[in-house]
Amino acid sequence: MKILDIREIAVPIKSDIRNAYIDFSQMTVSALAVITDVVRDGKRVVGFGFNSNGRYAPSGLLRDRFMPRLLAADPHSLVDDTGANFDPFKIWNIVMRNEKPGGHGERSVAVGVLDMAIWDAVAKIAGVPLYRLLADRFRGGVADAKVFVYAAGGYYYPEKSLSALQEEMQGYIDLGYSVVKIKIGGAQLAEDLRRIESVLKVLKSGDQLAVDANGRFDLETAIAYAHALEPYQLRWYEEAGDPLDYELQAELAGHYQGPMATGENLFSVQDARNLIRYAGMRSNRDVLQFDCALSYGLVEYLRILDMLKEYGWSARRCIPHGGHQLSLNIAAGLGLGGNESYPGIFQPFGGFADNTPVENSYIALPDIPGIGFESKKELFRLLKTLSDN
Amino acid sequence: MKILDIREIAVPIKSDIRNAYIDFSQMTVSALAVITDVVRDGKRVVGFGFNSNGRYAPSGLLRDRFMPRLLAADPHSLVDDTGANFDPFKIWNIVMRNEKPGGHGERSVAVGVLDMAIWDAVAKIAGVPLYRLLADRFRGGVADAKVFVYAAGGYYYPEKSLSALQEEMQGYIDLGYSVVKIKIGGAQLAEDLRRIESVLKVLKSGDQLAVDANGRFDLETAIAYAHALEPYQLRWYEEAGDPLDYELQAELAGHYQGPMATGENLFSVQDARNLIRYAGMRSNRDVLQFDCALSYGLVEYLRILDMLKEYGWSARRCIPHGGHQLSLNIAAGLGLGGNESYPGIFQPFGGFADNTPVENSYIALPDIPGIGFESKKELFRLLKTLSDN
Repeated sequence: MKILDIREIAVPIKSDIRNAYIDFSQMTVSALAVITDVVRDGKRVVGFGFNSNGRYAPSGLLRDRFMPRLLAADPHSLVDDTGANFDPFKIWNIVMRNEKPGGHGERSVAVGVLDMAIWDAVAKIAGVPLYRLLADRFRGGVADAKVFVYAAGGYYYPEKSLSALQEEMQGYIDLGYSVVKIKIGGAQLAEDLRRIESVLKVLKSGDQLAVDANGRFDLETAIAYAHALEPYQLRWYEEAGDPLDYELQAELAGHYQGPMATGENLFSVQDARNLIRYAGMRSNRDVLQFDCALSYGLVEYLRILDMLKEYGWSARRCIPHGGHQLSLNIAAGLGLGGNESYPGIFQPFGGFADNTPVENSYIALPDIPGIGFESKKELFRLLKTLSDN
Repeated sequence: MKILDIREIAVPIKSDIRNAYIDFSQMTVSALAVITDVVRDGKRVVGFGFNSNGRYAPSGLLRDRFMPRLLAADPHSLVDDTGANFDPFKIWNIVMRNEKPGGHGERSVAVGVLDMAIWDAVAKIAGVPLYRLLADRFRGGVADAKVFVYAAGGYYYPEKSLSALQEEMQGYIDLGYSVVKIKIGGAQLAEDLRRIESVLKVLKSGDQLAVDANGRFDLETAIAYAHALEPYQLRWYEEAGDPLDYELQAELAGHYQGPMATGENLFSVQDARNLIRYAGMRSNRDVLQFDCALSYGLVEYLRILDMLKEYGWSARRCIPHGGHQLSLNIAAGLGLGGNESYPGIFQPFGGFADNTPVENSYIALPDIPGIGFESKKELFRLLKTLSDN
């Protein structure tokens, strides 16, 4: 059992959207294929991976360091003790050899891409969907039949009117979502409140709407927003300040009783642990959004879940950023609280299996081996170009 | 005034040394040249930069994102308000456009390389050594005439005997260093103590020797070492635990009265601030080793110094990691406590101007415009290949 080749391409995901921090017009994604010599259903098993949105394609890091290390490894060192499958943990250690501690950015994305492809291959070799494999290995066989998903959108499109924003949100409702999210902080507070109120008009209650500042606020602004947002009783108030400013987050907790959410820009178990240690996050209401595809992959995410357990947090408090199928599998297999979704954007990477309806903001997973990319036609068309020939 | 071209190459710095965490046999460095249209002494001004050791050449990030952004910028947007020079702060903002907050690794190295080249060019255009420019701009004209440097070595070479270690240290003494540093944590405590005691035999007192665990220890091991090290009254005990494990560091402070040092693996002002907020570092004795060449450059380092001041820390507590001429200039120009030095290793990047002796562990800086690379013959021979033609 061995890895025959690893192939990577960087793909643009051009979009005219922007959040409070960046615009996405130059954003790229690494798509990667791990070609194995294992045959299932008459074909070679290929594992696919890609990085989540918000960070750039880590092509150089993959090509200069991580792909060569894996390709140079003794094939026996990549296989689990049964000899029947690859071992994502052993592979992770090989890939991270000769990397110093600290500095968890960019390389965490590169390793995340590779790790996604490895888990896809491992589940395909096992002949089961990844959520089933995870439930069997780590949760006594219990998998959730469906996963909570919410529709993240409400970006600041150039010239977008309030009625266009309402239409966008109504579109998500029509798709079956009952919880939606919009950006704040890219405009003044008064305008953001108008945006919020216009969206609330198409919803039944405040807890159907989350708002996301993308880390833009200083403490004073974060508190001003907190006071203004509190009466709406929103689903959550997300990433008010810089993701590493735990003191701001802890201080803000004294000014906002409703749920808060953060974590999408913390890319290691060490950073996640510091959030839990120092940011005053409340395990009975707050939401943790660590995204494995930006954070050294599922191998590291399992460490994060272990750490959370140690600190008395339920995995149900985790609703990962990113809107990709790997986190959806993790949510179903390991019992997370849900997963982000970006209907229609970050295509073809964002979103889940084709023809699986969202009902009351819950979605089921396809019953095919692996992460399920083959059930997402436009994505698979792109990924397949990596494994053809 | 404009930037005509930016050129980068990745150069191996092969070495058979290893510390407690990684070996350096695959280590690479990005060398970069910013070619300007400004003429001084009949030649085009070229600014040079490279990354510090311990992290890999960030070639892909430079070529995919940071170099193109700078080259695409309107030349007027790069110039300071006098119009007489480039503005490193404006350039930094342009280079970091469309980068999300958090995730401070790898890209911090890429930006550090570029920032070094910009400051080199700026000082050359001003016609002064960088330490003079920094002293004039930020310290009322006061520059230190010489800078404390210590010799970092004592790696775990394969098959290296205690007498070879003593010889290495004696060599540093003979070069004019009175303070040296060796690695610990790559062997068992008993063997490390033998290493320490053998080195102390060639020194006069414990405060001439620092020890560096490179972030390898868990709390229990860190404390065991603390108790064993305390009687030697060493210069400092460096990076005991994971660089992001502030709780370990704070706990360790209760077990070790002597100076401790850390920070070389924290790559942003946000991470540095968390160290100060949470790690129990003591401003009357501990040492901060943030390395601008791994951490978004001097522009970010100035933010770190401002932050330290806010928290009541003197710049004298800073002795940067890396052993390069940029930090030496910062130390002289901004009044840091000193700079690391690796005599004879990480060549040709490590070390300072040729033919400037170290006396009692202090070194003077050459009086030539820029960072001083032109006074370091082997390094300049390499850098010059980037600007020829």
